[in-house]
Parts: sequence; structure tokens; C-alpha cells
Amino acid sequence: MGGSIFGRNLKVSTWGESHGKAVGAVVDGIPAGLKLCEADIQAYLDRRKPGQSRFTTARSESDTVQILSGVFEGVTTGTPISLMVANKDQRSRDYSNIKDVLRPGHADRTFLAKYGIRDYRGGGRSSGRETIGRVAAGAIAAKMLNELGITVSAYTRSIGPHEITHVDFDEMNNKLYMPDEKTAAEAAIYLEEAMKEGDSVGGVVECIIKNAPAGLGDPVFDKLDASLAYAMLSIGAVKGFEIGEGFKAALMKGSENNDAFCKGEEGIQKRTNHSGGVLGGMSDGSDIVFRAAFKPTPSISIQQDTVTTGGEDTQIVIAGRHDPVIVPRAVVVVETMAALVVADAVLSNASCQMEYLKCMN
Amino acid sequence: MGGSIFGRNLKVSTWGESHGKAVGAVVDGIPAGLKLCEADIQAYLDRRKPGQSRFTTARSESDTVQILSGVFEGVTTGTPISLMVANKDQRSRDYSNIKDVLRPGHADRTFLAKYGIRDYRGGGRSSGRETIGRVAAGAIAAKMLNELGITVSAYTRSIGPHEITHVDFDEMNNKLYMPDEKTAAEAAIYLEEAMKEGDSVGGVVECIIKNAPAGLGDPVFDKLDASLAYAMLSIGAVKGFEIGEGFKAALMKGSENNDAFCKGEEGIQKRTNHSGGVLGGMSDGSDIVFRAAFKPTPSISIQQDTVTTGGEDTQIVIAGRHDPVIVPRAVVVVETMAALVVADAVLSNASCQMEYLKCMN
Amino acid sequence: MGGSIFGRNLKVSTWGESHGKAVGAVVDGIPAGLKLCEADIQAYLDRRKPGQSRFTTARSESDTVQILSGVFEGVTTGTPISLMVANKDQRSRDYSNIKDVLRPGHADRTFLAKYGIRDYRGGGRSSGRETIGRVAAGAIAAKMLNELGITVSAYTRSIGPHEITHVDFDEMNNKLYMPDEKTAAEAAIYLEEAMKEGDSVGGVVECIIKNAPAGLGDPVFDKLDASLAYAMLSIGAVKGFEIGEGFKAALMKGSENNDAFCKGEEGIQKRTNHSGGVLGGMSDGSDIVFRAAFKPTPSISIQQDTVTTGGEDTQIVIAGRHDPVIVPRAVVVVETMAALVVADAVLSNASCQMEYLKCMN
Amino acid sequence: MGGSIFGRNLKVSTWGESHGKAVGAVVDGIPAGLKLCEADIQAYLDRRKPGQSRFTTARSESDTVQILSGVFEGVTTGTPISLMVANKDQRSRDYSNIKDVLRPGHADRTFLAKYGIRDYRGGGRSSGRETIGRVAAGAIAAKMLNELGITVSAYTRSIGPHEITHVDFDEMNNKLYMPDEKTAAEAAIYLEEAMKEGDSVGGVVECIIKNAPAGLGDPVFDKLDASLAYAMLSIGAVKGFEIGEGFKAALMKGSENNDAFCKGEEGIQKRTNHSGGVLGGMSDGSDIVFRAAFKPTPSISIQQDTVTTGGEDTQIVIAGRHDPVIVPRAVVVVETMAALVVADAVLSNASCQMEYLKCMN
Repeated sequence: MGGSIFGRNLKVSTWGESHGKAVGAVVDGIPAGLKLCEADIQAYLDRRKPGQSRFTTARSESDTVQILSGVFEGVTTGTPISLMVANKDQRSRDYSNIKDVLRPGHADRTFLAKYGIRDYRGGGRSSGRETIGRVAAGAIAAKMLNELGITVSAYTRSIGPHEITHVDFDEMNNKLYMPDEKTAAEAAIYLEEAMKEGDSVGGVVECIIKNAPAGLGDPVFDKLDASLAYAMLSIGAVKGFEIGEGFKAALMKGSENNDAFCKGEEGIQKRTNHSGGVLGGMSDGSDIVFRAAFKPTPSISIQQDTVTTGGEDTQIVIAGRHDPVIVPRAVVVVETMAALVVADAVLSNASCQMEYLKCMN
Repeated sequence: MGGSIFGRNLKVSTWGESHGKAVGAVVDGIPAGLKLCEADIQAYLDRRKPGQSRFTTARSESDTVQILSGVFEGVTTGTPISLMVANKDQRSRDYSNIKDVLRPGHADRTFLAKYGIRDYRGGGRSSGRETIGRVAAGAIAAKMLNELGITVSAYTRSIGPHEITHVDFDEMNNKLYMPDEKTAAEAAIYLEEAMKEGDSVGGVVECIIKNAPAGLGDPVFDKLDASLAYAMLSIGAVKGFEIGEGFKAALMKGSENNDAFCKGEEGIQKRTNHSGGVLGGMSDGSDIVFRAAFKPTPSISIQQDTVTTGGEDTQIVIAGRHDPVIVPRAVVVVETMAALVVADAVLSNASCQMEYLKCMN
Repeated sequence: MGGSIFGRNLKVSTWGESHGKAVGAVVDGIPAGLKLCEADIQAYLDRRKPGQSRFTTARSESDTVQILSGVFEGVTTGTPISLMVANKDQRSRDYSNIKDVLRPGHADRTFLAKYGIRDYRGGGRSSGRETIGRVAAGAIAAKMLNELGITVSAYTRSIGPHEITHVDFDEMNNKLYMPDEKTAAEAAIYLEEAMKEGDSVGGVVECIIKNAPAGLGDPVFDKLDASLAYAMLSIGAVKGFEIGEGFKAALMKGSENNDAFCKGEEGIQKRTNHSGGVLGGMSDGSDIVFRAAFKPTPSISIQQDTVTTGGEDTQIVIAGRHDPVIVPRAVVVVETMAALVVADAVLSNASCQMEYLKCMN
Repeated sequence: MGGSIFGRNLKVSTWGESHGKAVGAVVDGIPAGLKLCEADIQAYLDRRKPGQSRFTTARSESDTVQILSGVFEGVTTGTPISLMVANKDQRSRDYSNIKDVLRPGHADRTFLAKYGIRDYRGGGRSSGRETIGRVAAGAIAAKMLNELGITVSAYTRSIGPHEITHVDFDEMNNKLYMPDEKTAAEAAIYLEEAMKEGDSVGGVVECIIKNAPAGLGDPVFDKLDASLAYAMLSIGAVKGFEIGEGFKAALMKGSENNDAFCKGEEGIQKRTNHSGGVLGGMSDGSDIVFRAAFKPTPSISIQQDTVTTGGEDTQIVIAGRHDPVIVPRAVVVVETMAALVVADAVLSNASCQMEYLKCMN
């Protein structure tokens, strides 16, 4: 079982390696009747494109998406949407230093253990380029959600120890995608220093989903937060997930952590949102707020101890075009993966009450 | 889509409500040829049983499991294993105070929003009793893993602010399942105080998986850590998941967080285990170590503001038999859910190399 | 992968062996808000119960169903519905003659080859009793469809060479479930003769689905007819499936086989129904009509050549309580499996147009 | 739920419409270590290519496949294999006569009913070109099976009333892919006559799978024959499926239809093969033999009554490049779909016994 298909009612099959001919995704399950064009998707891909700033790899890719199927006269037809982005800048460089050496923090050793073979060119299937298929597919999910009034917005919450003190999307016009100008400036300095040392840093991405109706997600295994956690940890470099108070909830008393319900203008509301918008695995009508922790990029230019593929001790220095921090480019990956989860939950809910089935006639 | 089926090659369908006739699970995909009897499963169920100490609900249930199918002459046959536990202590008490009121921190409001109907007796499908099916199924997975030399062990890492300073399984003979006697004693005092106030507390469960071969899990969506995160967040009350350094990794430099490979006696090893045993979504041969954060039990006897099902403001005091902390009984749930994830990954791997397919003849 | 779960949005996990403690099914995905009680299901089970006539096995089973979960105050809640039927008449007879011998036409040899082990008591998992779970689950699907105005009706089309000449449900009050009294009488005589010889016979079941809206089923793999074919061939003893003209269509010209569309009173209609109600994998608004061919029961009392489990030549005479024809009892199995397929297609369709998603608010 | 993904452990996502930019498939689950190049796949695609003879559409397409991912240095890596074939000959002809009219026997009416929108250019997703993805994916499955010694071979059994009298693959060098020269010649004359009348004909494809080990397929829903039936009926124009004696089994007695087991040189054998190589849903070690019935091509140049999309009566004459019989080009579609089913069953079996799991170390 390959494990490259995501979702239940909305299924995304991604494919492609860093140095193959192209990368892409097939999206099966988008309802008919959604207006969609390549620009809708390109806007998202541009946010993860390399070469946006000095904090991202210099690999030169336009990452132009093509819709190959499933859209007719500007509207989805209900059939699979095939998306493709060509790999252009596949430098014919010498991989011999990587070919026979296992890079620390990367999947080299585990690919070899699992499959007995690995595509060593640029990380192969574990390359960050794999996320292109996710972002392209998730952009469609986000469009679908927007039509239903639901928005998904991610941003950088912290870079190393520099954590934002507030969220103001008007302040997000910086290359770190931090909605707090002052912290963004401090984080940039921190990052510059790490780069000088040939080192890399990590950070946290936060995501807010607004206007999701109460009741999305299932009460047992396919809880909305379980699906979000799965989606987030499926992103390379993510090491942690939390929703609402997250790990802090473990330190709280029930009387502090419970959100009181109250009568609001538009029905039932909560006075607080410690839950992060999910109760019992289902959205509770409040904003859904979660965080994903990213480890520092494993590719660093400092010399590291490691072994050859044959198991002998050696050292490695990783040169080349690498992001000193993955977080800013990962923001749109978090956002689109979240959109896929929520869109899937919306599709599932369409058949959860007998009443809804009568809408089809 | 119901969302009550867990797993890919190893599928578990759980069923049952707190106050229905029984709860249970159907386990499909366990290989033929595994020795199995009810005592194997009962040992795990006894660890989650209510009434073990003054820190757990006084509901009286023997929680005796029956194997209804799939085992013949003490061995699994490869067909579905149906497991059932009768609900015995369903007190015919008056639910009228809960029936029309939405309990803060519970799934009452979200069930109603999703389905337009809710089984208000004892939390219905969101009851902790739903985990009986998980534990029973996961006990079989654990047995299967043990046959292959893999062990899964969970324990309480913290109760409120009281976190263990070391892990010594010889010190785990306490009702909080903490492998550190001293911290366990402090946590017990903390818990007593919360109980006196009618309040509840949270905590963190940690789990270690030993002897898993390198290469379990898939490199893209179905990463081993993504599946573990999904499994953990699918447990009611879990608000966060992290593997290896987890959220701390976001504060580290690449040079600190990367684990150097080295030549070991039995092949390739890592000098450190910041990764928590997973690289690129696949097990890396080191111990797999992850944590799940549990919120405080939402049922507290302190008066809370809330609304009626009709949306009018009211107050509620939740009396009755409730756990002041869910963590100790959740330890075995974490352990068995992890066993299901790892067993599923083992089954998936059986077909991931052409070489393995030749084993069948 | 166990292969005992049926369906996509509506998932049925069946479990149980002939001589285990019970058989049953878990049904996940039935929408909330469907009125349901045990009598709804029992009516279907009674149609497949043994001992209805001299043409069915004399095994004595009341086959009383219990609903263990998922229904509250007479209405489905949207959570899994667990259904169980106890095995009562498990005669403690001597299986030694079957234990070490492979019965021709049965799954004894294939179970052993696949799993290396087999439950030889009464066919184990391959017993006709496995269909109890299907019928119980399908009865719920049928109830759901009825609420939407869709009906599914199966009947015996032929027993051996005796094929009905017309379909009149008023004439179906016979133990062969043939809607043609005269043919039923002839078939009964034919069957008596086969029984005297210790032999068995086969037949064909036909099924008509009325009032299905156009558009059920998917245009590529999950075609409605493909799903029906899968469902039918998944019933033990079925060797063929056809829809509409079926195999006869291979002999027709396009000009004969195409159904002309015309303007009808309630919209677009077809002048003929050679298609059997499905075009391009989707229901076309006409009656859906298909057939399943059943082989003769493999258990016969005539002596047969075979081998021992060790592979040595031997003979076998199968005594005991066996149906000389499986068709009459299979009618309700065909009907309920078809109901599951159609109900699943209805649930899938609830999310196939953007318009439908707006029904949820 | 889109319904364009086939398989369980071996998953194929096909995409593409007749007049889109391309068609293709993503194949997830092929084990690592299989030698594979584009020529392996092209050989199969060439068998379904248009323009092979006067009996096939004159649409000019080279149908050249590109492998975009999943293969490295000539060997599969275990990651998804993306396959693409560009659509070249998309004549910019006038579709106005088809745009507003529903063609009898086609999916025009059902697409519109389901999705509220249809891509009317050349059948859109229901075009025969959709099978390119199936054939390309199935070619890989066939290669995998060949490595394990299993072969899958399909051929035309009948065209209209002309049915082969024997199977001799040396006689299959004809454009109808009939392994019987004499019948092929007669069928060609029959076909010419139908073409002169502007009409079309149907036929039957048969498929033989050799050397499959006993035990493939699951005993309940995912029976090998159920999966084959699903695969066959998922091919457009297929109206019937039968295995072994098929519908004839319904006319036989148990004593005739049962296959006696006997001691053979290589273990247990069957004296006859009425079962068609499957017992109880699992392969029984004999050749697996099944048939699929194809209706006549619905596109005919004879005038037909129909309606407009608005529901008004009208007539249609379908001009253009259409196959007067689909059967010869469908032979390779049957063969490759069968290969996908069998390969999937092989992958599933890799985890069905505890013994097999030990092969991984």
C-alpha cells in the first residue's frame, strides 16, 4: 500500500520526485460546479515557490501549474482534476557525495531500509517539491471552502525563540510570513546569524479556520483534529501538533479549560476558545486554531558525522541550495493541507443526516 | 461516511455507546497463525477498567471481553475477529438535567449540530467506554508485534505540573502509572486537592516503541508519525502530539537537532535520538518516542455557565461518577492505539519490495 | 487486508463463522434520523432463515437479531449500528470426516492454501450464515432507500431449466420465491427429483430497483453496475452477473440495443430499457434490472472423488443438513446487497454538486 | 467521493477526458525493485491504439506514454508512478449537434443528471480514451505478475454470433484478436456488413490467468471473482461477467458442476475446471477463466430518435470516427484490468500469514 493518497471523500494522489520530469496531483471528489482556473491555484504555488528571498533556496523554478483534466469551460465537472508542474531546474550536478552517504536528519537511511533502493537526487520523493502537489490540490479545496464562506489562514508563529505577540494580517507583508512586523524583524536577524554559521533553524506555524459550521468531523477516529494532526505530521519536518491550548491544556484545571456556552446573537456561542474550535472531534462553531512545530532544516553546511550506505563511518558537508528555515515556505503547505481536511469533512457531512439526502431532488 | 473504522491493512471498526447494550470492535486483517485467547486481551482491558483507585470513576464494570469470531483452536484464522464487552452498570438514573443542557467541554453541542440528535446518556458514543473497542483491538496488535519482537510501552509522563524525572518501569506500580515513585506521590497529592475543589486535571502520556525495524511507515501521507498523531488525536481529550524533540525542535538549530549516524555493532546506529525514531515518515531503527497531551476531564462538580439545547442561558453542576483525571486510564489506550498503527505499518511493508512477494511460495 | 468490509460511504463489516458463538455486522455511515427497530431487520432475516420448507436445510435457528448500538429512542444517531445474531444450533457432531478431507466445490482447499489453517466446522467463514450480516445490514439500507422512495425487489428467475415467463408479485407466495405460480410448481417437481438422487441444482435470481433517480453511480471505476457486479459475485455460489440485456447484448446490433430517449410526462424517458437502467455507469432513470447466476449447492450426498488435506486420493459422501438449492434463500441476499450498493451511491451523490453542499445550512 | 481510484493495496487513479490536454494514471503501491521502462507499457498501449484496422476509429493518436515519476535507473522505487499520454488529435470540429442532444446508449443524459454539467466533447470522461490510464497501469501490474510467473491473456471469444471453436494463440494474428482464424474471417465479414448499414456489433472477451497460486482473493467481500467482476463491469460497454461455467452453472446439477480433487504431480489438482479457477472467492490453483460481454458500440450512423438536453423530441445521426465494434480494442483493457486485480490480490496476501511477516528481516 503506497500511502500517497490523502483523504476520504476528497482524495488527493500526489506523485513526483525532486529530479524527475515533473510533480503533480490528481484530485478526485471535488463537486461539479466550482469555478476554477489555473490562476486560482498559481496564487498558492507562488507562495511556496523557491527564490522568494534570501531565506529560501535559490533553486530557480517558475512552478507553473497546468490543469490537465476535470475542468470544462471554467467550471469543475465532478471528474478527477489532474495538476502538473514541470521540474525545470534539475541541475546535472554531481551527486556522488550524496549517493553513497546518508545525510543526518534526512530520509536517506529510512528509504534504503524500506525499499532497498533510493532516488538520491535531491531527496527524491522526500523533497520539499513533493508539497507542490499538496498545495495545488489544497488550493482547489480552499476555493471550494471560500464558496461556502469558510476561510483558512496560516502564518508563522515563531522562528526559533522569536514568537509573535499578536496577529495582524496587515503586518504580514514580510518574507517570513509573520503577522507581527517587529518580531519578523528580530527573527530575520536571528536567521541571518544562523546562516552565517552554516546552520538552520526551526519554528512554528499557526492556522486559523473561520466560519466553519459546527459539526464538521466525526466523533470517533476521523475527528477533525485527528485529521488535522495527521495532515500536519504528514508534512516533512513537522514534529508536533496542538489544537487550542494544546500542551498547555495538560497543565490546566477543568474549571479553567472548559469553555462556557452562552446565548449569542447568532445562536449558541462560547465565551472562550480553549478548545481551539473542536469538541469531541467535531467543530464547535468557534474559530479552529492549531499549530504545527517544524524542526530546523536538516541540510546544513557544517560538517557532520555520518555513515556511508555501506555502514562505514564518514563525514559530510552539505553544500548547495537549501532553505536555512523551512517555515516561511511551509505556511502555505499548512494552509492548503488544512483546507483539504476541512473540505473533506464538509463533503462527508453532506450525507450525515437523512434530511440532507432530500436536497438532491 | 461514518468515520468509525481505523487503519488501512489492519482495520478496526469500533461500535457502542456508554449506555447501550454493549461496546465492541471488529478487527479485520490480523494474519492467520497468531496464538490468541481472551486472557491476552483481558489483561489490557483491566488496565483501563473503571474503579481501579480513588482517582477513577466508581462505575462498576467487569469489562469482560468475549471473542466471538476469527479464532479457532486458539489461533487466529485470518478472518475478522469480533470482540464484545457487555455494558452492565447502566444505572437507570435521571438524565433530565443533562438531556436538555449542553455540558461545557463535552461533545453535546457538536453532536447535536452534526446529527440533529444525540444520545445524551453518559456521553453516548463520546463516552470513554468507546475506547474499550480500541484497547481490545490494540491488544491483539500488541500480541502480533510481540511475536515479531516489537514492544510498545506507554506511561504517565506528567499530571498537571508534576512531570517525571526518569523512566523506571520498576517504579510504575502506582495507580497513576508513573514510572517514577516520587513524582507519582507528588502528583497524587495534587490530584487529591483538585478533587476536593470538585475540579479536574490534565497530563501527558509518553510512549516508547522498541525494536521496530527501520523502514516502517510511508514517505508521504501515511508517515508513521502522521499515523501516530492521527491515532492519538482520535482519543477523546487529547489536544497535542509530539514526537522526539517535538515542539522543542522548533527552538533548536539544525546542528543540534540532527542525529549523527555511526557504525554500530548491529549495523547503522544514531548517536542521539532527537528525531524520536522517525525520519522522513519512516522508522529509523531507534526507539520511537512520542507524547500525547490530555486536557483535564471536562466533567467537574463546580457550577458552570452554559446553555440549554434550546440555546437559553443556564448553569450546570455535573454530579456523578467521573474521573478527576483521565490520564492514568488513558495510558493503555495510547499504548494500544500505537500498537495498531505499528502493526498496520508492518502489514503494509510486507508488500513493499518485490523480494518479499517471493516469500509466499 | 482482510476484505470483510463492504462499501465506501456506507461501510459494512461482517464477522462470524458457522459454528462460532454468533455472526453479525457493524454498519457505519447510515445517516442520523432514520426510524429503525429490530423488527425492520428481522423481516428480512426471516426470509433467509433455514427450515422454511423441505427445500432448505433443516438446521434450526431462530436467527433473532439484536441491535447493540447506533439507535436511540427508535431513531439512528449517525454512529455505527452493531447487529448480532447468536448461533444456537451448533450441533456437536463429529467433523472428523470433513476435517481431513477437502470437499469438492467448497472453499476448503483454498482456505488452507491461503491461511495455512481452516475452521472446518460447517464451512467456517464461508458458511451461508455469513450472509446474515449482509442481510441485516442491507435491511437498514433498504429502509433508508424506502424513505427516499426507492424500492429494491429480488425474486427467483429460474431453477435449473425452469425459467419464469412473467413477473407477478401476487404469484410469489411460494417457497421458491418465484413470481410465476406455474413455473414454481414445475421447478418444485424438478427439485424433488434432484433431491431423490442426492443431487443439487442451480438457478438465477433477478432484481429490480424502482424509482432510483438518474445519476447514481460514478462514471469510471465505481460505476453503479460495477458495484452491483462486485456485490453479487461476493455472494458465495454466484458465477455470473448481467445487467439489462447482459450477455444477449453481445449478439445485438447497436440499432437494436440503443434505447431511444423521448419526452415523457415527468421529463426525459426511454422507449425501451435494454440498458437495464444504467448508462455509462450511472442510473438512467429507468428501472435497474440485473441477474445473478447461482451454481448448484456443492454439498451433495452422492459419493465424490477428492483428496485428503495431506493430498492423498479419497472419496467423500456429504451427509447432513444442506440446501438442495441455494437460490430461494439467496433472493433476500441479492436484494439486500443491492440495497447496500444503491444506498452507498445515494450517500456519495450527496456531495457531487456544489449546490448540494448548501443544503447543510 | 469521486470513484476514479481502483484497487486496495495497488491503487490506480486515472484522469483525463477525450478532448482535454492529456490522459493518464497514478499507480501507487507497486513494490520497489521491479525493472520497468516505457517500452514495457507502450507495448500494451499499442494494442488499444486507434487506427489499427478498418474496424477501429480513424482518430490518429500515437498514444506515446511518458513515465513521470516512481522509476529510477530503470527500477521502480516504491513511490507513485505517474503515467501520461498526450491527446494530440483533438479535432476542432463542431460539437453543436452533440452539445444540445443526448445520444442514445451514451452517458450524456446520466452525466447531466448527476453533475448538472457535462463535457460533451467526444464523450468527455466516458470516452474510450479513459481506458489508456487503465492499460498503462495494468501493463505495470502484468510485468509484476510475470516476474512472479503469473500470466494474464485475453482474446476475443465472439463477435456477434460468431464464436471461436478453439483457442490457439498462433492463430491470433488478426485484427479482431480472435485465436481462431476461421471464425475471425467469418466475423470480419459480419462486421463489414454491419458497417455498410451504419450499424455496430457487440461481442465477448475471454481471459485466462495461468500459474496463479492457490489462495489469492479474500473469502468474503473481496473475493477474487467479485473483484474481477467489478473490474470488468467498470469498463464502459460491458453488460455481463461470468467465471468458469458462469450462467451455464445455473442449469447444472451439483454432481456435474463440482470439480473432483485428485493427487497430481505437483500436489493437489482438479480433474475438471467448472469453477473457472476460483472456489469460495479464492484462486484454487487451476487456470482462472472468465468472460465479459460487450454491447454494440452506441455510436451508429443510422438516424435515431432522442431528445435535446432541454427534453424536447428530436433525431440524431452520429457521424465521425467511431469503432463499429469495441471488442478488439477492449481485449487489452480486459487483460490489464485483470492484471491489476490479480496483482492487488498478490500484494494483499503478503500479509495474510504470520509466517510471511518474518520474510522482511
